[in-house]
Amino acid sequence: MDWAKWRLVPQNERRECLDGFETLAAQLDAVQSQGKGSHYWCQVNGQKADLGLMVLRETLDQLQEVETSLEKLRLSDYLVPTISCVSVTEVGLYSGKPTTDRGWSYVNASLHPKTPDKPYICFYPMSKTRVPGANWYTLPYDQRKAYMHDHGKIGRSYAGKVSIILTGSIGLDDYEWGVTLFADDPVQFKKIVTELRYIEASSIYGEFPYFLVGTKTDPERIDKLLTDQMGQ
Amino acid sequence: MDWAKWRLVPQNERRECLDGFETLAAQLDAVQSQGKGSHYWCQVNGQKADLGLMVLRETLDQLQEVETSLEKLRLSDYLVPTISCVSVTEVGLYSGKPTTDRGWSYVNASLHPKTPDKPYICFYPMSKTRVPGANWYTLPYDQRKAYMHDHGKIGRSYAGKVSIILTGSIGLDDYEWGVTLFADDPVQFKKIVTELRYIEASSIYGEFPYFLVGTKTDPERIDKLLTDQMGQ
Amino acid sequence: MDWAKWRLVPQNERRECLDGFETLAAQLDAVQSQGKGSHYWCQVNGQKADLGLMVLRETLDQLQEVETSLEKLRLSDYLVPTISCVSVTEVGLYSGKPTTDRGWSYVNASLHPKTPDKPYICFYPMSKTRVPGANWYTLPYDQRKAYMHDHGKIGRSYAGKVSIILTGSIGLDDYEWGVTLFADDPVQFKKIVTELRYIEASSIYGEFPYFLVGTKTDPERIDKLLTDQMGQ
Amino acid sequence: MDWAKWRLVPQNERRECLDGFETLAAQLDAVQSQGKGSHYWCQVNGQKADLGLMVLRETLDQLQEVETSLEKLRLSDYLVPTISCVSVTEVGLYSGKPTTDRGWSYVNASLHPKTPDKPYICFYPMSKTRVPGANWYTLPYDQRKAYMHDHGKIGRSYAGKVSIILTGSIGLDDYEWGVTLFADDPVQFKKIVTELRYIEASSIYGEFPYFLVGTKTDPERIDKLLTDQMGQ
Amino acid sequence: MDWAKWRLVPQNERRECLDGFETLAAQLDAVQSQGKGSHYWCQVNGQKADLGLMVLRETLDQLQEVETSLEKLRLSDYLVPTISCVSVTEVGLYSGKPTTDRGWSYVNASLHPKTPDKPYICFYPMSKTRVPGANWYTLPYDQRKAYMHDHGKIGRSYAGKVSIILTGSIGLDDYEWGVTLFADDPVQFKKIVTELRYIEASSIYGEFPYFLVGTKTDPERIDKLLTDQMGQ
Repeated sequence: MDWAKWRLVPQNERRECLDGFETLAAQLDAVQSQGKGSHYWCQVNGQKADLGLMVLRETLDQLQEVETSLEKLRLSDYLVPTISCVSVTEVGLYSGKPTTDRGWSYVNASLHPKTPDKPYICFYPMSKTRVPGANWYTLPYDQRKAYMHDHGKIGRSYAGKVSIILTGSIGLDDYEWGVTLFADDPVQFKKIVTELRYIEASSIYGEFPYFLVGTKTDPERIDKLLTDQMGQ
Repeated sequence: MDWAKWRLVPQNERRECLDGFETLAAQLDAVQSQGKGSHYWCQVNGQKADLGLMVLRETLDQLQEVETSLEKLRLSDYLVPTISCVSVTEVGLYSGKPTTDRGWSYVNASLHPKTPDKPYICFYPMSKTRVPGANWYTLPYDQRKAYMHDHGKIGRSYAGKVSIILTGSIGLDDYEWGVTLFADDPVQFKKIVTELRYIEASSIYGEFPYFLVGTKTDPERIDKLLTDQMGQ
Repeated sequence: MDWAKWRLVPQNERRECLDGFETLAAQLDAVQSQGKGSHYWCQVNGQKADLGLMVLRETLDQLQEVETSLEKLRLSDYLVPTISCVSVTEVGLYSGKPTTDRGWSYVNASLHPKTPDKPYICFYPMSKTRVPGANWYTLPYDQRKAYMHDHGKIGRSYAGKVSIILTGSIGLDDYEWGVTLFADDPVQFKKIVTELRYIEASSIYGEFPYFLVGTKTDPERIDKLLTDQMGQ
Repeated sequence: MDWAKWRLVPQNERRECLDGFETLAAQLDAVQSQGKGSHYWCQVNGQKADLGLMVLRETLDQLQEVETSLEKLRLSDYLVPTISCVSVTEVGLYSGKPTTDRGWSYVNASLHPKTPDKPYICFYPMSKTRVPGANWYTLPYDQRKAYMHDHGKIGRSYAGKVSIILTGSIGLDDYEWGVTLFADDPVQFKKIVTELRYIEASSIYGEFPYFLVGTKTDPERIDKLLTDQMGQ
Repeated sequence: MDWAKWRLVPQNERRECLDGFETLAAQLDAVQSQGKGSHYWCQVNGQKADLGLMVLRETLDQLQEVETSLEKLRLSDYLVPTISCVSVTEVGLYSGKPTTDRGWSYVNASLHPKTPDKPYICFYPMSKTRVPGANWYTLPYDQRKAYMHDHGKIGRSYAGKVSIILTGSIGLDDYEWGVTLFADDPVQFKKIVTELRYIEASSIYGEFPYFLVGTKTDPERIDKLLTDQMGQ
């Protein structure tokens, strides 16, 4: 948010900008309530960004459409794009084909995730190392499977505390995966990431260029954020 | 695209900017229909860029000319240059001289590629590693040939699904090669890049600084993109 | 601080900006005097930044609130955000559960630190290395404990000279820890960091991307800094 | 070039800017025709820059003077500085003292090079690696000499096709050398850099942070570039 | 220097800006002539910066004061800060306590250096490597001492040709040391840095992120630089 520029906008124009934003937000909500996608608005902690939006759609075209609509918002004239990540949902390479209904429903949930209703979000991209002495991609399949099994066990031990949406961005964006965590208590992000860091899949083979933490918000609160204490 | 600056441009001036752009676009089309070059307009996914253009020309001078014409467009006053890559088409070092007509026509196609009519594009630069323990350039020729053979086999197995234009930029730009993939389904980009990443030519010896994914577009749709829902 | 932009602000508007800033500063002071948080204003040395603020709060939401209030200050229109770090206080992984009252009060102080009243501050983020041949996270627990013991011993030998607030930012920000030192003499920062650099926990396993040094200040002095010798 | 800003300049002011530029360019030409220096104007390919200037002078002060004159040009208000490199010409460390007249004239040419009259230019900075397992500076002199001999042999095999000006920038700029190639055909840049990359001096011990390629131009063509199709 | 912005400043305002600058410069001179500090103005070569200032003071507070005064100069509205480094003078760790008067006076000169009256300056930050296989900080003291002895010998062999001010910035700024060289001939910078690069303390254990070279100047010449050929 370019607060200085936004502050100069007259009250009635600000309202128009926010009305446009809320119309778009309502469209996203409509898509979500029809089960055709999902999204999550957040206020980002620290100086990396002010606002974040995670959008899940069935096709890249739908995603592009949302992106274009956002860019065309008059409100966007006062936003400064910082970080983005394009990725697709995936089922783990090491899970095998499900053999039970519960297995299939798990796969379905992985491929068509919904952003959970938890108040805190943590996003980080991840790649596997490919340096001499620590090359994930030259490990035998079984070794990688064993490592990912340990990894998955820790992930599952946080069930109820941390929800995870794992997406693949290899060939689509700069890093290989995008990890999005959701929790009721942000300290859980620190706990799970710390615990994972001590197992081989992460300690030896994980690269984590940056982390973003945010707080869930919604259009109404964003409206309030952008109008309260802004003078005039 | 600097949307905020563009929004302030009066309707009739916007039209003039777009007319200039469309004249240039028509010139590119003319060159293409005369078989003297080829190009591909795309809308880039994510916040890295809005629009992309890949241009193939027979000489660096022709390329420079296109670049200069683009920069002089009035529309360019509202575009922010982000990423560029200069490279030349090449035939693989490991293929040997063709011995059949079909071989020669393959070489010809490699040296004078045309951008295919597929709706999705993926571009990534690539260099070969030169670190102790993983130095592509000190490998014996036969070893490199074997590695590239495995690499080519995967590439060919995507025939019909993914079209590839490989260009060399060593000595011309920061990375050694430019890889451009085209597909009917963007998930194929993730699939082929993942599959390639597990073979030595990539796992040990490939460096991939960034990836761009986009959707094919054309001047008419760019016009629409820049005028629809932009007020006035 | 964008001094050029600030210089153009008329005297009376400058006063309004500073009044807003001082109201917020007084709120921070009130929170501090109620024992519900703590903070430290500083003037940063060198060209990395002009002003710095360290804020300790019990929840991420309270931290977010402070951040938002700061961003909404009219004065912030003349500030340029540079570096930020989000982290939580923690007790060392290697200390074990305290067995004495003194031990518990030490833990309490670590978890609920107060910024000390010392005139110099030094902040640096830190991560543990995870490269082949120097991977902190694959070391056995006892080895890490022994290394941290040596580390702690040096830290304690500076008691009285250097106060330390250690916070964890793994999973919350780009680096794994944030280290904040406070001293009566800034040369002590150089001394302790140098001494620490020769022991394994730092020499082999520490990564230190940047260092910031500053001088304690307060709202009154910031007011003076922003008004003295600024013309009009 | 900030084309958007330049476009707003009225015709007559543009002329004044260009007249100032051409006066300076004529001064450079005069110095060159007096044999007291040499320079090369180019149009840079890709989005890294629009215009480039390589200037050779006998002293750092003369170089500084040219730089200052350039910065003070009114035209420079519309140029955005991107990349620069300060270096001095040198004779190879491994050539020994010349023993023939031809040898001395070669040394002289290396120390007082003239930019050749070739239409394409390629510039890249270079450093020698100093990592464990590939440290140029700990190799014995004879080993380095042998490696540079192989390197020089390839360089000489391009005689007539590629002219090389090698300058040293160790202690003066961020990288250790600056390599400038000139050719009648830009594909030669790709060929020579590729061939060199397979020999040890480059494959193991060379670091090449970036490459710039450009086309020779002159003040008259720059004038045309900046006035043609720029409206008004 | 933002020359474009400066050019727009009316003649009389430029004079006011320069008068303010010269008042500050005179204050610095006064401090220097009282033996309470030292400084060096330079014009930086290449596009990294236009002007540089090295200031030596006895306390961080005095340094901060100079920095603040500089930032508040009206002239600073037309300067763009680029690179800064905060450090303290130090005596080598390996020299031992002096045993002679000459030794003590050497130590005194190292701790309270004066910028010498030489026309060229070279500044570079430096850190010691801490990677597996080349970790300065895990070397035994005697080994480091021997390496630094070789290093010092080369430094001393340039006595009269190159003056050195070595300052420590570990714990104060991003790199561990700041090296400032002064010479009558800038080629000496290239010579000494090259010679040093072949000995272990630098070849194996030195990291040199960037180099700056400049020419000594003074307020009068800066005034001339900023007014000559600037129109009006």
